[in-house]
Amino acid sequence: MSVSVSSTSVMEQVMTANGVEPIELLTASNDNFDGVIIDMKNPMDSEIFVSSLRTSISHWRQQGKKGVWLKLPIELVNLVEAAVKEGFWYHHAEPKYLMLVYWIPETANTLPINATHRVGIGAFVMNDKREVLVVQENSGVFRGTGVWKFPTGVINEGEDISMGAIREVKEETGIDTEFVEVLAFMQSHKSFFDKSDLFFVCLLCPLSFDIQKQELEIEAAQWMPIEEFAAQPLARKQGLLRSMIDIGLAKIDNGYAGFSPIPTTPSFSNHPIYLYLNSRDLNQQRISD
Amino acid sequence: MSVSVSSTSVMEQVMTANGVEPIELLTASNDNFDGVIIDMKNPMDSEIFVSSLRTSISHWRQQGKKGVWLKLPIELVNLVEAAVKEGFWYHHAEPKYLMLVYWIPETANTLPINATHRVGIGAFVMNDKREVLVVQENSGVFRGTGVWKFPTGVINEGEDISMGAIREVKEETGIDTEFVEVLAFMQSHKSFFDKSDLFFVCLLCPLSFDIQKQELEIEAAQWMPIEEFAAQPLARKQGLLRSMIDIGLAKIDNGYAGFSPIPTTPSFSNHPIYLYLNSRDLNQQRISD
Repeated sequence: MSVSVSSTSVMEQVMTANGVEPIELLTASNDNFDGVIIDMKNPMDSEIFVSSLRTSISHWRQQGKKGVWLKLPIELVNLVEAAVKEGFWYHHAEPKYLMLVYWIPETANTLPINATHRVGIGAFVMNDKREVLVVQENSGVFRGTGVWKFPTGVINEGEDISMGAIREVKEETGIDTEFVEVLAFMQSHKSFFDKSDLFFVCLLCPLSFDIQKQELEIEAAQWMPIEEFAAQPLARKQGLLRSMIDIGLAKIDNGYAGFSPIPTTPSFSNHPIYLYLNSRDLNQQRISD
Repeated sequence: MSVSVSSTSVMEQVMTANGVEPIELLTASNDNFDGVIIDMKNPMDSEIFVSSLRTSISHWRQQGKKGVWLKLPIELVNLVEAAVKEGFWYHHAEPKYLMLVYWIPETANTLPINATHRVGIGAFVMNDKREVLVVQENSGVFRGTGVWKFPTGVINEGEDISMGAIREVKEETGIDTEFVEVLAFMQSHKSFFDKSDLFFVCLLCPLSFDIQKQELEIEAAQWMPIEEFAAQPLARKQGLLRSMIDIGLAKIDNGYAGFSPIPTTPSFSNHPIYLYLNSRDLNQQRISD
């Protein structure tokens, strides 16, 4: 439901015609938590914006509203300072917009927090000769060190972990793969400014074998015997890499069960989303039931 | 390494003394990816800021720098519009600051993306009588529906998943628990504006049994026989809740193996962080080696 609808162009025409500033409510929609969302789209003078904002908040206060979300596209950057001076603060930002918030009641705010995690993947891809797919990067902490590592990457906004792992392996090495399982995951903090990382170790099955490395970020890529890879000083020293090798081999040789993606359709979504679980153990139970 | 150091107060004194605007470089530090980070702390006039910013970028261009990070605390909101007009765009924001970025080279930018996921937990807590700990919420989509659900919550910034699960159960129900395993997880998209959710189904073992429900968000909390809980219409209809019950029972009754948190110390961190893996299967392999 829209609380009220006003149009900047109408407002400006009225001002020109009679010189009186009409104070109209800002267009807003309700959320599910007694809050309102102002999704600003059209340019507006910052003084008119402040008048409308004050009148709107007064109106919403009478209605018992709590949180006020203000989404300002980057083209409306002229309104940011005005909003902050009215008591708004930053909630989150993306390249093309800034989301500010305001809390009307006297009580402590219960607004949801911003996204806190980036999601990365590391890919364990082994061929029939027990060679793993490895790369050398030409930026970051391992640049110029000669260290071989598993392909890694960051999941894009809106991308499934399994799809992101397939994409990263393809981009870095040219190898096509099928996603099998998440073998393990790791959570680390303050990895990027104050944000945390969730890093998923993924097992993928190679569908092609001819390497074509990416020019921009990858120095070299190859199939390397797993024993040679595991003998690198870094693999013997660094806990995570050592664990990735151990778990990958436990999967290949000893039937270690990770979490495989099962499509499901929850009530709040109309497209399938993936539940990752130990399907081997769950299926064994169903068989034994 | 600091690229250059300048002070606003010195700059202003010089201006007052001789009327000539000194164009000094902005204070910045280098990052590991040929970029610089400007961490603005002191108030500055926006015109002086623009002059310094232009001179600084010109200097960094000559040095071959690529990305420019500009962190503006909310008190310096007067500089946001100026920065955007100079070609900066938003990268991310937190309540107290806005991070903007600029890319100097002609090539496409390779700046890392913003955090993309919020992390939530659902808690499967069962006592010796095969009763699970369940709650009714007084906000959100289930408000007023009488639906019983597992305790759920959102992980705080910088919080471990296992600690967050223990905290949420304690806050909502007063029950103390020990974290056992992640039984499954689910990734969903566009759950909060354009952000994604990672939802971890956690098994916790109760250490206390007297419920003291939270007043603010929880309508009711109780121990409920698992069969009664599973018989709710929602549990029979909704895939995720159904799966949580199935997997929880598979764990309790049939030895389903989830991922347990193993402390590890990676090279990039000096405090232990948790790798979640199928430790039962991994230990079996080690015993058989």
